[in-house]
Amino acid sequence: MQAYASLFTILNKAIEEQQLTLNTSSPKEMYEPMGYMIGLGGKRVRPLLTLVGCDIFGTDPKTAVHAALAVELFHNFSLIHDDILDKAPLRRGNATVHEKWNHNIALLSGDGMLVKAFDVVSQSHPEHIHDLLKLFSKTSIEVCEGQQLDMNFETLTRVSVEQYIHMITYKTAVLLGCSLQMGAICANADKKNQEHLYNFGKHVGIAFQILDDVLDVYAEDEKFGKQVGGDIISNKKTFLLLKTFELANELQAGSLNHVLNSKAISNQDKVKQVTSIYNELGIKELAIKEANQHTDLALQHLDELTAAADKKNDLKSFALNLLKREM
Amino acid sequence: MQAYASLFTILNKAIEEQQLTLNTSSPKEMYEPMGYMIGLGGKRVRPLLTLVGCDIFGTDPKTAVHAALAVELFHNFSLIHDDILDKAPLRRGNATVHEKWNHNIALLSGDGMLVKAFDVVSQSHPEHIHDLLKLFSKTSIEVCEGQQLDMNFETLTRVSVEQYIHMITYKTAVLLGCSLQMGAICANADKKNQEHLYNFGKHVGIAFQILDDVLDVYAEDEKFGKQVGGDIISNKKTFLLLKTFELANELQAGSLNHVLNSKAISNQDKVKQVTSIYNELGIKELAIKEANQHTDLALQHLDELTAAADKKNDLKSFALNLLKREM
Repeated sequence: MQAYASLFTILNKAIEEQQLTLNTSSPKEMYEPMGYMIGLGGKRVRPLLTLVGCDIFGTDPKTAVHAALAVELFHNFSLIHDDILDKAPLRRGNATVHEKWNHNIALLSGDGMLVKAFDVVSQSHPEHIHDLLKLFSKTSIEVCEGQQLDMNFETLTRVSVEQYIHMITYKTAVLLGCSLQMGAICANADKKNQEHLYNFGKHVGIAFQILDDVLDVYAEDEKFGKQVGGDIISNKKTFLLLKTFELANELQAGSLNHVLNSKAISNQDKVKQVTSIYNELGIKELAIKEANQHTDLALQHLDELTAAADKKNDLKSFALNLLKREM
Repeated sequence: MQAYASLFTILNKAIEEQQLTLNTSSPKEMYEPMGYMIGLGGKRVRPLLTLVGCDIFGTDPKTAVHAALAVELFHNFSLIHDDILDKAPLRRGNATVHEKWNHNIALLSGDGMLVKAFDVVSQSHPEHIHDLLKLFSKTSIEVCEGQQLDMNFETLTRVSVEQYIHMITYKTAVLLGCSLQMGAICANADKKNQEHLYNFGKHVGIAFQILDDVLDVYAEDEKFGKQVGGDIISNKKTFLLLKTFELANELQAGSLNHVLNSKAISNQDKVKQVTSIYNELGIKELAIKEANQHTDLALQHLDELTAAADKKNDLKSFALNLLKREM
């Protein structure tokens, strides 16, 4: 996005420097995988939001560079360890750390990355460290809890939509809120404004995650870049599936359970049949409605934020752009 | 130790409260293993040292309770993850977390414990948080590096005694130094006194580790509590073995390599033959000499510390008692 070009320049320079440090640190068995992971890129939305959360109050965004790096390091730690938990072979089209090296290396370099994140927080301006650490450690714990809840869901037979929203809030959304608020802390924003930014980020995160579930089923194949219906094939407890179980009549629930548990059915037919039940119940529309409610909540918080109108508009456009992906 | 009875009372109460919180937190799949691990006990030397590092300057040791808890949580995080790395079935006579639950649970509850350690640091008095976090995160990184170096040693053919000392310094000794210094920070001690305490702890840690290697070979069976010669049987690169390789003539090195690599030899004979080479070269005495040098360095730092003589004496007795175990 044009408005954030200069923030991206600051961010990318800081991340490249961090990557260089990691790639040349010893013992290389621990640091190389950290540099590799950081180098895989991604959209770097979280650390960008930290700079935005500082810049939006008219404070030099460089003030928040360490906080931004901490957020990016933490996010990459969670990816390394999540990939172990999920036995994922690929991340951003490249081999995951435990595949490219091994499990022990992935465990230890993930630990190193997590500790490094807190170390980087300690390099912030001393007057901000107390508030930064409090927020960052609280959020980090919530992300771990969210990951555990997600793991628990795999073996639970019933999960409510409410539990699901709680899980994605912890696993994904709070880190977006935290990223913005850390920037606000570095800008010496008052508590109220900090909270508005936090809640803005959190609700955008929840909306994003619900829309991600929709996209998995209803994206156009060629634009999506991964297999449409992957969540259905793996029986993943998404917003769509859980909402369906809440609304389905006995007949629909019965045929849904049959399709999910049948080993005889092809993946293609499974996707087709589950989607058709979703369509009967209007699940796509309900999911979009739920996502929109969170987007609206986010925008209300942004509205109440005391900051320059043009900067608020830039953040609004950025968030809406994140949420408006091809379906 | 009698002198530290009241510090242990404060410490054990705080740890029990922490354990209760962990045992009743949700999701229990993540928190129960954390409570379990903390509950296995151990000597709790590290958090005790944090209280000592505060008390030695005449400051209420309760000021350092959060720092002490952080150290204990961090230590237990490292045990959970090290046990995964080492595939260890037992810890303090009980099943390790990955054995009692599974690898994923051990990975995630270890992560949670690490994050919790930093969260507890954030609960310290705001004026100390900057210095506490800087020291604690730096030390945490070093401990991870030490663990990686230890893993690297397993596959290296040659490791120097110097490299070995570096490894044990990072893996074990710096956390003892850090524990004491965190207490000193909470007591508002000046930098010089902080450093003396840090170095005291670090050198005690190095001495302890070297003596631990000696004990593994030369302890009296019934007092040691584990198999004498375990390090020799597993070809572990200890101070004794590495020093032997540095001093051995061609003949001794040849027969040492033969014994280490032979599959035909019984464990009992292996221990006997390696020990006999150690004895030829006076390795036990050299190891004790090296340990004593570190003890002396530690005591010099304690000597230079500005604190009440009786409190300094208590710490000296405590450390010497730690180091003076039955051989």
